[in-house]
Amino acid sequence: MARIVMKFGGTSMAGIERIRNVAARVKREWEAGNQIAVVVSAMAGETDRLVGFCREASSLYDTREYDVVVSAGEQITSGLLAIALQAIGVPARSWLGWQLPIHTSSAHASARIDSIDTVALDASLANGEVAVIPGFQGVTEEGRVTTLGRGGSDTSAVAMAAAMQADRCDIYTDVDGVYTTDPRIVPRARKLKRVTYEEMLELASVGAKVLQTRSVGLAMKEGVRVQVLSSFVDADGASEPGTLIVGEEEIDDMERQLITGIAHDKNEAKITLTAVPDRPGAVASIFTPLADANINVDMIVQNIAHSAGSTDVTFTVPTAELARALDVLERQSGEIGYVKLVHDTRVSKISIVGVGMRSHAGVAATMFKTLGERGINIQAITTSEIKVSVLIEEDYTELAVRVLHTAYGLDAEDAAA
Amino acid sequence: MARIVMKFGGTSMAGIERIRNVAARVKREWEAGNQIAVVVSAMAGETDRLVGFCREASSLYDTREYDVVVSAGEQITSGLLAIALQAIGVPARSWLGWQLPIHTSSAHASARIDSIDTVALDASLANGEVAVIPGFQGVTEEGRVTTLGRGGSDTSAVAMAAAMQADRCDIYTDVDGVYTTDPRIVPRARKLKRVTYEEMLELASVGAKVLQTRSVGLAMKEGVRVQVLSSFVDADGASEPGTLIVGEEEIDDMERQLITGIAHDKNEAKITLTAVPDRPGAVASIFTPLADANINVDMIVQNIAHSAGSTDVTFTVPTAELARALDVLERQSGEIGYVKLVHDTRVSKISIVGVGMRSHAGVAATMFKTLGERGINIQAITTSEIKVSVLIEEDYTELAVRVLHTAYGLDAEDAAA
Repeated sequence: MARIVMKFGGTSMAGIERIRNVAARVKREWEAGNQIAVVVSAMAGETDRLVGFCREASSLYDTREYDVVVSAGEQITSGLLAIALQAIGVPARSWLGWQLPIHTSSAHASARIDSIDTVALDASLANGEVAVIPGFQGVTEEGRVTTLGRGGSDTSAVAMAAAMQADRCDIYTDVDGVYTTDPRIVPRARKLKRVTYEEMLELASVGAKVLQTRSVGLAMKEGVRVQVLSSFVDADGASEPGTLIVGEEEIDDMERQLITGIAHDKNEAKITLTAVPDRPGAVASIFTPLADANINVDMIVQNIAHSAGSTDVTFTVPTAELARALDVLERQSGEIGYVKLVHDTRVSKISIVGVGMRSHAGVAATMFKTLGERGINIQAITTSEIKVSVLIEEDYTELAVRVLHTAYGLDAEDAAA
Repeated sequence: MARIVMKFGGTSMAGIERIRNVAARVKREWEAGNQIAVVVSAMAGETDRLVGFCREASSLYDTREYDVVVSAGEQITSGLLAIALQAIGVPARSWLGWQLPIHTSSAHASARIDSIDTVALDASLANGEVAVIPGFQGVTEEGRVTTLGRGGSDTSAVAMAAAMQADRCDIYTDVDGVYTTDPRIVPRARKLKRVTYEEMLELASVGAKVLQTRSVGLAMKEGVRVQVLSSFVDADGASEPGTLIVGEEEIDDMERQLITGIAHDKNEAKITLTAVPDRPGAVASIFTPLADANINVDMIVQNIAHSAGSTDVTFTVPTAELARALDVLERQSGEIGYVKLVHDTRVSKISIVGVGMRSHAGVAATMFKTLGERGINIQAITTSEIKVSVLIEEDYTELAVRVLHTAYGLDAEDAAA
């Protein structure tokens, strides 16, 4: 017997026919004698509909009331899945966020799970009942409904798994696992059997959107074994094995690759300030107001002073925050004292990720050399312990990903799809 | 300053534009210095959509899970109205059934309100906040979501008014009040300024569907002054006065009519069992199995034995329950020992209602004489203290209502609409 959390996204819950498929899949695990909690999203499109209502009612909506409105989507699917399970002979009941309860912070619309009470749940599971839990929602100490922010159901599932001390948290998605890179760009991308939390975090944060970043961080902190697998089944009703996201210690040296995956992100914009006076505090006068405006600055390059007493500063921000960033910088022009403010949205960030690079020299050099051979110019570089990212011209994105995938020996023998 | 409960139905809540109109109307009462709780229905069509999902998931759905699903409709509108109120400067917050809480019985899908805790609510109202409360929902002692059955939002509103000791419970509906009869049949029907609880109960239960019957019964028990008024407003943003439903003591002798209203109901079916043996226990052998099958028998007529030792028994059941009733009676034919089982759905029940008939003789006689003069045959009769009902051929329904409306002096000078 194992304890398993199964999480299904909005596409899997879109309509009763699909909910019935989910019920059948849950039944397989239940019949195998496992204790099961299912975390569900709202029907695809429903959350957008409810968010739309709130925005239409007031652009400055109260997030406490927004949470009351949008949490209804998962409430509906949790009740429906419980009904569908009972209809095929599986005892089941729904547990709303306030019923368990799932205690969260009071940061409405983007709350953080503090703790989950599992006393009642444990008794129910011990009775052989399947627990159906609406994702994305919780309750504050004062008893008000909260939501965790968009995509929060992944986080709900991992938090449930941690609280229940589940053996596994299975996340069913539109894709069947985590790949070495985007298979639409590289047909020979390989599905990873295992990936570490750290690698998954880096891959997720640079554009390989399989799991919500917060949920991966939580899984790492709590040591929850997460499996990503397809919600589509074979004729037998079973899923192919997906990708297991685990701690580094669970990955054999044998299967460890130097580089685990290659990610790309076209949603960055580059900003350059020219001829910034080269004096103490100059850089702070650029980035402090951006931080105050809650704008995420990613890669930063400060060129060597090209003329006496001044320097060029280049950095990237998410494209969605570009307009706000430019506005802040224009208002600060007197303080900073730059000559020109230039921006470019036609850039792309390419990242190589792998825990293996910790113990190997020359990994970054291979990247720069490979790109250089194809005439791809590198505009900026950032590195972390397990990641090297470069900023390049957007047009070269696919070429860069393909040549790096080959250079690091990631190509599969057959094309993936 | 008064305490007022305002209740808005699904048509008034259908879409943000209409919710904004509701907010504007609530603001008028709030600006007048009143303490206000608003009870809302789900958007028109939403409850049907959610009920449809449950039925599609399983014809034998668990009513506990059904309640989780369908209560979401009112949860959504309560959050949205709170947002819309805040947007026009009215402090407001939603209170879900489990938050107040509204304690109910555990008869899921048709729960009864036991009590409402108003401690937190009172503090909020005293702060000048408008309370927005989803109708139709509550919570059991075990903390599970319940609903009150279709149309339950009227009952929620009246129960809230009782718990809050509100001065008035205003129910905004598609009609602008209670009429002496259906104005589509009698253009000279008059809107009643006041009607007693008892009369409203009799009128509601025989087809004048303005308020849910249960809510009227509760208002009578708790002495809640209910006003029915139109959700449509004049250019000024005000509603015309509607109909006040009050205790008998509040109605002046001067304005008291002999007959308050005339109702009709075409949803009755007549069943006749011929030549039932005229022996003790024969009638019980008919009606006990019908009661066991939860079939509501209304009018009963037992004819004088036409031949030695046998009698005909005629009664009515709701048309929707006719098939089940016939099935029960066929299976009981040996026990009962009738000769023929005959039914007729082409009948209609016409009722005259009025507390005035308590102290006046001859009211029923006027009814029989009026119908007789038009050649309308009476097939069955039932009476209560404040009501006389007759069963007639369905084709004569409109004629009967019209002639009785005139006979009891109810015609207005001008046509209503």
